Amino acid sequence: MKSVTDYLWFNTSKAREFVNITGQVEELVRRSGIVEGCVLVSAMPITAGVYVNDAESGLIADIEEWLEHLAPYRPGYRHHATGESNGDAHLKSLLVHHQVVVPITRGKPDLGPWQQVYYAEFDGRRRKRVVLKAMGE
Amino acid sequence: MKSVTDYLWFNTSKAREFVNITGQVEELVRRSGIVEGCVLVSAMPITAGVYVNDAESGLIADIEEWLEHLAPYRPGYRHHATGESNGDAHLKSLLVHHQVVVPITRGKPDLGPWQQVYYAEFDGRRRKRVVLKAMGE
Amino acid sequence: MKSVTDYLWFNTSKAREFVNITGQVEELVRRSGIVEGCVLVSAMPITAGVYVNDAESGLIADIEEWLEHLAPYRPGYRHHATGESNGDAHLKSLLVHHQVVVPITRGKPDLGPWQQVYYAEFDGRRRKRVVLKAMGE
Repeated sequence: MKSVTDYLWFNTSKAREFVNITGQVEELVRRSGIVEGCVLVSAMPITAGVYVNDAESGLIADIEEWLEHLAPYRPGYRHHATGESNGDAHLKSLLVHHQVVVPITRGKPDLGPWQQVYYAEFDGRRRKRVVLKAMGE
Repeated sequence: MKSVTDYLWFNTSKAREFVNITGQVEELVRRSGIVEGCVLVSAMPITAGVYVNDAESGLIADIEEWLEHLAPYRPGYRHHATGESNGDAHLKSLLVHHQVVVPITRGKPDLGPWQQVYYAEFDGRRRKRVVLKAMGE
Repeated sequence: MKSVTDYLWFNTSKAREFVNITGQVEELVRRSGIVEGCVLVSAMPITAGVYVNDAESGLIADIEEWLEHLAPYRPGYRHHATGESNGDAHLKSLLVHHQVVVPITRGKPDLGPWQQVYYAEFDGRRRKRVVLKAMGE
């Protein structure tokens, strides 16, 4: 089994931001030379998510509004007793999940025609990392 | 490392439908000859999900109602400016997640006694695909 | 490809409980001798979840309250016609997801500084299992 690991760094200028990282995933798969296998794409902070969906700006705004509705930014989370103010970001991370596994088939990410891989930052303006690990043969 | 890939096609008659695909996952694992490893089961459209839970019709109706409550079908999603009317289906897909990894132990899917693998269609009446990729030895 | 499987058993005294299992995941990775790969951590019951987030008691209370808000314990789920009263636990399981994949790099779980692996019990006082499967080389 071949395995290649890479890390993507983010430091978004906004508190919340959705970054399309499909190109970086494709690049790692190409570089790995893996023909059959998968690549794990996993956020390392606990206030961010990784998901697969559409690269359509209206939908991305819908997702942001929806997450805000279900896991609102507000005072009063118990977690804020630690000095943080990002309780909502932890809940948003749980809601969209923090990772995806992208299959690799015939040397390429085996994604549907509209599937794009997104890093979802919910508590930006800090340095954050995503680990990419391609595994296969 | 051995790797076997298969695709399941769906074209549900209803807009929303929950299809038990545990049998197809078992069949691929059997066919692959893999004794130890895992099988990735991943929806390729962005308006469908794959999850593991109970094959109980009352619960499935509960899940459908609950998803409708948290991510309602309605006009007004920004995504609809593209001509689509399926904004809710994208959100439902994010909520249940679009994939699962089923472990393979001693040549079989290593599932709990009640765990069943479901394809959850949220925007049917179109041709959709699920990729199954078994990996291991 | 090397593969090592283990099962963790739980029988929580409370209906809902969040158990930090990071130590057990680390222990399996050490024992496996795998240097590059990943470990799947997956709940086998359908009324529990596995997630990665912070080991901070305030946040854990926030998560519990939030899950109760989005998927409340209540009578009236159709699933209860089977004699069960745990409809909410199935929905909570779907919401946080039932599994994570932890990358293994240089012989260790490749987690962010605050990432901890949690077993989230939503219908305790019964024997439940989590499967850990490390795969790699």
